[in-house]
Amino acid sequence: MPSATAIVAGASFADDVPDPIRGFLQVPSSDDWARAAAADLPTLLVDHANCELKAASTALSLMHRYPGNAALTYRMSRLAREELRHFEQVQKIMLQREWRMRPLSASGYAAGLRSEVARQEPDRLVDTLIVGALIEARSCERFALVAPYLPDDLAIFYRGLLASEARHFEQYLQLAEQAARAVIRPRVDALREVEQHLINVPVTAAELRFHSGPPKDA
Amino acid sequence: MPSATAIVAGASFADDVPDPIRGFLQVPSSDDWARAAAADLPTLLVDHANCELKAASTALSLMHRYPGNAALTYRMSRLAREELRHFEQVQKIMLQREWRMRPLSASGYAAGLRSEVARQEPDRLVDTLIVGALIEARSCERFALVAPYLPDDLAIFYRGLLASEARHFEQYLQLAEQAARAVIRPRVDALREVEQHLINVPVTAAELRFHSGPPKDA
Repeated sequence: MPSATAIVAGASFADDVPDPIRGFLQVPSSDDWARAAAADLPTLLVDHANCELKAASTALSLMHRYPGNAALTYRMSRLAREELRHFEQVQKIMLQREWRMRPLSASGYAAGLRSEVARQEPDRLVDTLIVGALIEARSCERFALVAPYLPDDLAIFYRGLLASEARHFEQYLQLAEQAARAVIRPRVDALREVEQHLINVPVTAAELRFHSGPPKDA
Repeated sequence: MPSATAIVAGASFADDVPDPIRGFLQVPSSDDWARAAAADLPTLLVDHANCELKAASTALSLMHRYPGNAALTYRMSRLAREELRHFEQVQKIMLQREWRMRPLSASGYAAGLRSEVARQEPDRLVDTLIVGALIEARSCERFALVAPYLPDDLAIFYRGLLASEARHFEQYLQLAEQAARAVIRPRVDALREVEQHLINVPVTAAELRFHSGPPKDA
């Protein structure tokens, strides 16, 4: 018996998506995205490398913005180090295949979420951390979704990233809850709703990214 | 027989400053800086934590700016990870002593060097990398200079950072040389001259930072 949200998206979660992430995201990605993404591996990997670098940059910007929050800066520092290690791993895979980095616009997914972030504290920090949790959770789900369509070495690499993305999701959510236990629940609902819309907006083939919707013509 | 530059600064290099760094910096820091810095350890450590975070941010900004330079992005990613690990180590030492992070203005040293960076490529990249080499080299020299004035555990920690700062200095310089073998030498001379001025401009006690000059009243 599929859930209402699964019917909306016309898809179900990949088998190896951890339960906490299913419960958090609610709406699974379309499988059409995964097939289209796997059909253009160089673009997938350039975009993935960009995502890892941006995740590290976001963590550092939080460290700069909240220097007095030792729990936050410690967690963000370690998270940034891990994202950078993933960046290096993606880069290594690309070099092995002689795929070059090239300019590639972002999908608008992260910008779409960030545009919903409150301008005033303490909501601003809470929202920023919830957005971090959503991006990590969705990345985990998408790695699981795309892995079956990938060559073996890439599938192993992407499945290996599931656990760390799931951990980052939990850490972001814990930090958000610490930051504002009282105000978090309605913001999770509001931001999750935006996320569920953004992740499945059909795009043209040229716009297909890690966090774009499925191709329009699938 | 002291060199001309050593006479200018009224000081000599600390014993454990590696030869390549002596040769590169030419002008040693004043020992007055070290004594004054060691007299206010909480400020030294807050400033040091800020320096590590800024070094990581600078590395990430280079990765964002030159995504197609795989040698650069790989090296900067690893360097940023190491700076963040140092940030975490400084934070741990501060927590052990129950010293809190607090807002602290930067010394103007890095901004003074960056204001000399060329606006046009390829000089902009070369200059930015030389500035990175200068900051790492000077940090190495200052760790060596201040260590004798520190409590044992901090002295061990700071002496332990010497090797990685020296390595970062070499890496920045190699990247700069790769980026522009032909144009580097006069820029090294020009930027080094600015650096030698900035590092020894006397400051008030309130302005004393890791990269400030010695106190005026020493």
